[in-house]
Amino acid sequence: MAVYTEVSDEELIDFVAAYDIGDVVSYKGIAEGVENSNYLLQTTSGSFILTLYEKRVRESDLPYFIGFMEHLAAQGIACPTPLQSRDGTTLKRLCQRPAAIISFLEGMWPRRIQPFHCAELGTALARLHIAGSSFDMQRKNGLSVRDWRPLYESCKARAHEVDCGLNDILALELDHLETQWPSALPSGVCHADLFPDNVFFLGDKLSGMIDFYFACNDFFAYDLGICLNAWCFERDGSFNVTKAQLMLSSYRKTRAFSEEELHALPLLARGSAVRFLLTRLYDWLNHPEGALVKPKDPLEYLGILQFHQQIKCPGAYGLE
Amino acid sequence: MAVYTEVSDEELIDFVAAYDIGDVVSYKGIAEGVENSNYLLQTTSGSFILTLYEKRVRESDLPYFIGFMEHLAAQGIACPTPLQSRDGTTLKRLCQRPAAIISFLEGMWPRRIQPFHCAELGTALARLHIAGSSFDMQRKNGLSVRDWRPLYESCKARAHEVDCGLNDILALELDHLETQWPSALPSGVCHADLFPDNVFFLGDKLSGMIDFYFACNDFFAYDLGICLNAWCFERDGSFNVTKAQLMLSSYRKTRAFSEEELHALPLLARGSAVRFLLTRLYDWLNHPEGALVKPKDPLEYLGILQFHQQIKCPGAYGLE
Repeated sequence: MAVYTEVSDEELIDFVAAYDIGDVVSYKGIAEGVENSNYLLQTTSGSFILTLYEKRVRESDLPYFIGFMEHLAAQGIACPTPLQSRDGTTLKRLCQRPAAIISFLEGMWPRRIQPFHCAELGTALARLHIAGSSFDMQRKNGLSVRDWRPLYESCKARAHEVDCGLNDILALELDHLETQWPSALPSGVCHADLFPDNVFFLGDKLSGMIDFYFACNDFFAYDLGICLNAWCFERDGSFNVTKAQLMLSSYRKTRAFSEEELHALPLLARGSAVRFLLTRLYDWLNHPEGALVKPKDPLEYLGILQFHQQIKCPGAYGLE
Repeated sequence: MAVYTEVSDEELIDFVAAYDIGDVVSYKGIAEGVENSNYLLQTTSGSFILTLYEKRVRESDLPYFIGFMEHLAAQGIACPTPLQSRDGTTLKRLCQRPAAIISFLEGMWPRRIQPFHCAELGTALARLHIAGSSFDMQRKNGLSVRDWRPLYESCKARAHEVDCGLNDILALELDHLETQWPSALPSGVCHADLFPDNVFFLGDKLSGMIDFYFACNDFFAYDLGICLNAWCFERDGSFNVTKAQLMLSSYRKTRAFSEEELHALPLLARGSAVRFLLTRLYDWLNHPEGALVKPKDPLEYLGILQFHQQIKCPGAYGLE
């Protein structure tokens, strides 16, 4: 939970005056999100999200993220749309930060994942991948296989503080991933952070996806691996094959995946586990005292990694 | 900023089903407030605040707080109104906590106080005091003169960590306040925590007051002292007599105060400064590491106390 930048009422009123969205009647900082400051803004014409982009987001990446949201919305994908101010721009500045007003998306993210959520998610992710194919900007994934070793190097002296065997496990796993990582697979724009708190539902229907601030060009199947890890493991660490099967098969109904993708899935899921294990480990070890955001447990992703390490073929995910 | 209790989507939907406010379409934890967990809840019929009462609020006090809000709303005072569920109750339970849905109040609290804010506040406080006279429940102020010494005793061994002279200043001041504190003055229900973040404005008009969870029966002029301290000092510690004069004279136009109240004001303002100095000192010294809420600076209130110590008569507040 986080609001890093305090916006004053006067600054906000000035900022909103550049848009055709009526007058501000209320705004409240939202205790969700880790990277940016978000306010729920209410005006005489409705509800909006005001986002101030904080230091962890590179300013040069913002046109890609904002552009991708605009592109998806234009393709009919349910996601927040950056609003254009009267001068036609979507990205402005507020309190010395890049800032945007984004449309408000109804729905709630599911705290307890049920199989139907995974089925809905599979379809939505496939639609997102297809819709992204006509988006012409590029952004390299800054947290892919080549980026993991530097992260590991910066953590390895203290990895034993989290788990005594973690250092060796990561060293071996990185060797494996670096040699086995595929060089070519169907790819395009990935969400790359589609955790349950970024997917909203109304009743049993997915109502939209949010938080495109890790979006990047990468293998589609890697994005699926991220979702598999984020949605199909229970709190006790067990893998729910029913959820996985529903997610993957509903994805496949919308965007068929190739033999190569299917075959690579266990490796990509391992890579995705390592990506979140390493960033959580880094945040855990470098967590400033008194920080507003509680770091997430890296060991959750060690368990997920170890599950995928013993997978021999994608049949273990409920696919034939 | 704080959301202490995480409410799941399923629990929330069940909870809201007991009310006639339509279906939930969104809810977001609000990064404001220190004592309780607050969510901004949107349903098919509008916006509401869901409050879960946390441990610092005594459950036995809730009927008084809720009752007072209902009473004020019925008297036409702009404040949040607790909603009745279908069974007629306003206070229910959610996630093992007492919980209520409260009407949503439009407006923004002022970050930079201007004189007109103080004029508006004076009128609103006087109207609140008058409206409370027909409220028949009682609640003793748990943070008044008799409660300061125990707080001081629990802090004095470490008060020097905050300021080397603080211990002596507080010891002398408590002696003075305990002997001089008035035994009888016009009294009734006070808000007792009417800081700028609890008062909303739309443009230059006060749109409502919130957060009645310190409300109690006490001297009206003590409530004024709290407001004087919270609204009329600049960030550099200087006292803005224009603001004070506007606040007090607009109060007086709505509820005339007696000679005794006027005379007691400097002492009551000192007491109010000690009350916030002590609770801030306590929170500062007992701030758990990694807590979600950053403690407020006690020394701000030491400066305010020292200002009032050298006041000889209420004329210093701009009154004749």
